[in-house]
Amino acid sequence: MQALPQVASCDIVVFGGTGDLAMRKLLPALYLRDRDGQLTADSRIIAVSRAGLDDAGYRDKTAAELIGFLPEGSYDAAAVDRFLERLHHVTIDVAEPSAWHDLCALVAPAARVRVYYLACAPRLFGPICSGLKANDLVSSACRVVLEKPIGHDIESARQINDEVGSVFAEEQIFRIDHYLGKETVQNLLVLRFANALFEPRWNSRAIDHVQITVSETVGVGGRAGYYDGSGALRDMVQNHLLQLLCLVAMEPPTSLDREAVRDEKLKVLRALRPLTGREVERSTVRGQYTAGLVDGKAVPGYADELDAPSDTETFVALKAEVQNWRWAGVPFYLRTGKRLGHRASEIVVQFRPVPHSVFPDIPDAAIAPNRLVLRLQPDEGVRLHMVTKEPGAGGLRLRQVPLNLSFAETFKERVPEAYERLLLDVVRGNPTLFMRRDEVEAAWAWIEPILDAWRESGSPKRYPAGTNGPTAATSLIERDGRDWHEEEHA
Amino acid sequence: MQALPQVASCDIVVFGGTGDLAMRKLLPALYLRDRDGQLTADSRIIAVSRAGLDDAGYRDKTAAELIGFLPEGSYDAAAVDRFLERLHHVTIDVAEPSAWHDLCALVAPAARVRVYYLACAPRLFGPICSGLKANDLVSSACRVVLEKPIGHDIESARQINDEVGSVFAEEQIFRIDHYLGKETVQNLLVLRFANALFEPRWNSRAIDHVQITVSETVGVGGRAGYYDGSGALRDMVQNHLLQLLCLVAMEPPTSLDREAVRDEKLKVLRALRPLTGREVERSTVRGQYTAGLVDGKAVPGYADELDAPSDTETFVALKAEVQNWRWAGVPFYLRTGKRLGHRASEIVVQFRPVPHSVFPDIPDAAIAPNRLVLRLQPDEGVRLHMVTKEPGAGGLRLRQVPLNLSFAETFKERVPEAYERLLLDVVRGNPTLFMRRDEVEAAWAWIEPILDAWRESGSPKRYPAGTNGPTAATSLIERDGRDWHEEEHA
Repeated sequence: MQALPQVASCDIVVFGGTGDLAMRKLLPALYLRDRDGQLTADSRIIAVSRAGLDDAGYRDKTAAELIGFLPEGSYDAAAVDRFLERLHHVTIDVAEPSAWHDLCALVAPAARVRVYYLACAPRLFGPICSGLKANDLVSSACRVVLEKPIGHDIESARQINDEVGSVFAEEQIFRIDHYLGKETVQNLLVLRFANALFEPRWNSRAIDHVQITVSETVGVGGRAGYYDGSGALRDMVQNHLLQLLCLVAMEPPTSLDREAVRDEKLKVLRALRPLTGREVERSTVRGQYTAGLVDGKAVPGYADELDAPSDTETFVALKAEVQNWRWAGVPFYLRTGKRLGHRASEIVVQFRPVPHSVFPDIPDAAIAPNRLVLRLQPDEGVRLHMVTKEPGAGGLRLRQVPLNLSFAETFKERVPEAYERLLLDVVRGNPTLFMRRDEVEAAWAWIEPILDAWRESGSPKRYPAGTNGPTAATSLIERDGRDWHEEEHA
Repeated sequence: MQALPQVASCDIVVFGGTGDLAMRKLLPALYLRDRDGQLTADSRIIAVSRAGLDDAGYRDKTAAELIGFLPEGSYDAAAVDRFLERLHHVTIDVAEPSAWHDLCALVAPAARVRVYYLACAPRLFGPICSGLKANDLVSSACRVVLEKPIGHDIESARQINDEVGSVFAEEQIFRIDHYLGKETVQNLLVLRFANALFEPRWNSRAIDHVQITVSETVGVGGRAGYYDGSGALRDMVQNHLLQLLCLVAMEPPTSLDREAVRDEKLKVLRALRPLTGREVERSTVRGQYTAGLVDGKAVPGYADELDAPSDTETFVALKAEVQNWRWAGVPFYLRTGKRLGHRASEIVVQFRPVPHSVFPDIPDAAIAPNRLVLRLQPDEGVRLHMVTKEPGAGGLRLRQVPLNLSFAETFKERVPEAYERLLLDVVRGNPTLFMRRDEVEAAWAWIEPILDAWRESGSPKRYPAGTNGPTAATSLIERDGRDWHEEEHA
């Protein structure tokens, strides 16, 4: 493997540094980039929490937890030792105005790249930013990373954006959506824009419809209290699914660098046909799981986990339309849910059938239309379904075969985790794969009328855990003469 | 494997039944179709030659020779025994008017499908047809198969077509070109017409140029006497290469059945820009091999094999143009030769580059354009070269990867030999993959002015055996800023 380029010297300050996200995702990602030589020798990771640890205590804690979260075969004792040396811990109670001096004393001069990663509850975003400002910890070399959710509606999103925006300029704010850091998602851009075969066919003349599915087997479990104030539309559709839709649907940007991609994504969000009132009933389905079987194991229903009746949806299916010349008449079917039968995130681009069969005795309808499947989870990869001739001296028989663009098979290399790329992109100051303020607010502007209509229209449909969601989701797409793509979940 | 459909009961009468083609290709092909159950129990194979063998003698000869020509693993003692039972031998000297009664006595009633396969020198086509007619051996259930060459210019081709045509109707005449029976060639039709992705891009807007190469390592050897009156243009380009060009370039036919494909191929041949006079010099290169090394073995030059000086070409490269809306400005580079460095037959469809690179730091020219490579020999298969993202958390790096549509790998089945399909197509009465009279004559009409111009313009360029042909062939394409596709010969 060729040596990867190093990023600039940096301090990465992780608020919530002892939390779940830091331990499971951020530290493993930083370790792997460090192991591959991408961090300079003097770069540091400064964990901030209320845990009252010293550096040694934090290093011990990390050493103990890291091994459980690293991908198989990536643990290297020497590299781990070197990585642990980068770690520091500072105790801050962000509610206490006096608590910041340890951090002030530790961080390097202002000219160095400094990343504040807010891996904590959104209600702390404001106080943390105020604290950083009050303690003179903000310079033009600083960046701040915000984890979702950015609000629960457009008003609260604006409030968070205002709070953070009063301290950091928009180009310093990195709103992370880890789906955008997945290899498959970036490969979607490469497929579209580095292969002249696709882009001219990437429109309503060639594409019948698009499906975006993020299907989970987990339930809300201990998060029921938080989740009940949110639901699948806010938790998954407003960010992840709409972001994926944008990358599929956007016009070719001038460049993937800087603002051009985000300008194009924003145009897509603003081109979404608003779903309001009666239209919401026709074009959306919401569900909530009841007790059932997942992977052969009995699991409780959502209301049991919450220990209260609730109308919060754990499943959404909806039909979106992008109102522009490229996509007129091409539905985008989105669905996501918890406690479904299998875990799979994928984008399916279903091309139109051939206009006419030239093959004797093979009707048009028997020729499977081309289909591009971009799989995000569990195994990242791209498959192009094409029709070829079945070998043999008999009559002409056609067969659909998937052309595998799986990274693992083609490249024999580990597919990096989304956070590995995204964290380095923050250090590089490359915001392409992060959400801009206007995107977040445009997404909320489309989501909010759906939430409003739902409040007027009764309860979600119940579906047993371990199924594909409510049958109404099947009807939603079958009504249009189409089917959800299921066959690759085996 | 599902059972393959049987073809109608038939008698296959092979003139030249003890010859090289019959033993190496026709009998193995018929055996394999018989083994797979596609011949009815009462179907027979009747060899005709001057060898004076009885049925038992011919069966012994076949039994002894067959095993050497069967693909590995396809010999099945019981199937061979059953196959040998189908064989009969009739001795005829076609020059003798009285010699036909044994055949008359043997063949079944006229209503049954009867195939006359003329696996013999073209000078015998006329006498055989006359003999068949004189002996009342021609009915509407009869078909005749002609092996190339059909003439050595348009005049002699017309003469053969007239002679055969005076006995058989055009729809009974099957002019075989075994290249058209190859799986890859038929898969070209499936790729084009069963995948909506390709056909709309199959034109000058998307395709930069097409290359068709048939490169052989063998020399003319013992055939030098025959070959010297022919040459590569007549022997390979007039039939095989132009037929492949037609299948790449033709408009979508109404159906692959019956006459529609041949109508479309004819249109392509007639749309070829005539090469005459000075244009021949600019757009064609001919070569003749001299002594050299092939696969590390010293081999003699053509003139040595012929034992006389000669201006006959053993190599041709040329640039053809199809003058219609679809292909205006898209060159078709053709080349074929003997005693080249490697054996490879392939069609390369080179797509245009992306119009603009959206990738930071990657110039347009660094993005390899898509390329479809249809390989006919030695390993049949189709590869689509696409650009994907190299996995990794570093900057965005692109890599061209070949998507393999190789039949052997995808289907884990033996790729049948061309003759297996073509022989059954004759029995089925399906002429799609055979050349019609007007096609043969249109091909000659395009070839003849090139031959004429060559006669006026000196000698072929010499090239050492084991190379890629004369350097002028490289100049021919490099002059246009393009290259011959070589990298997959490894």
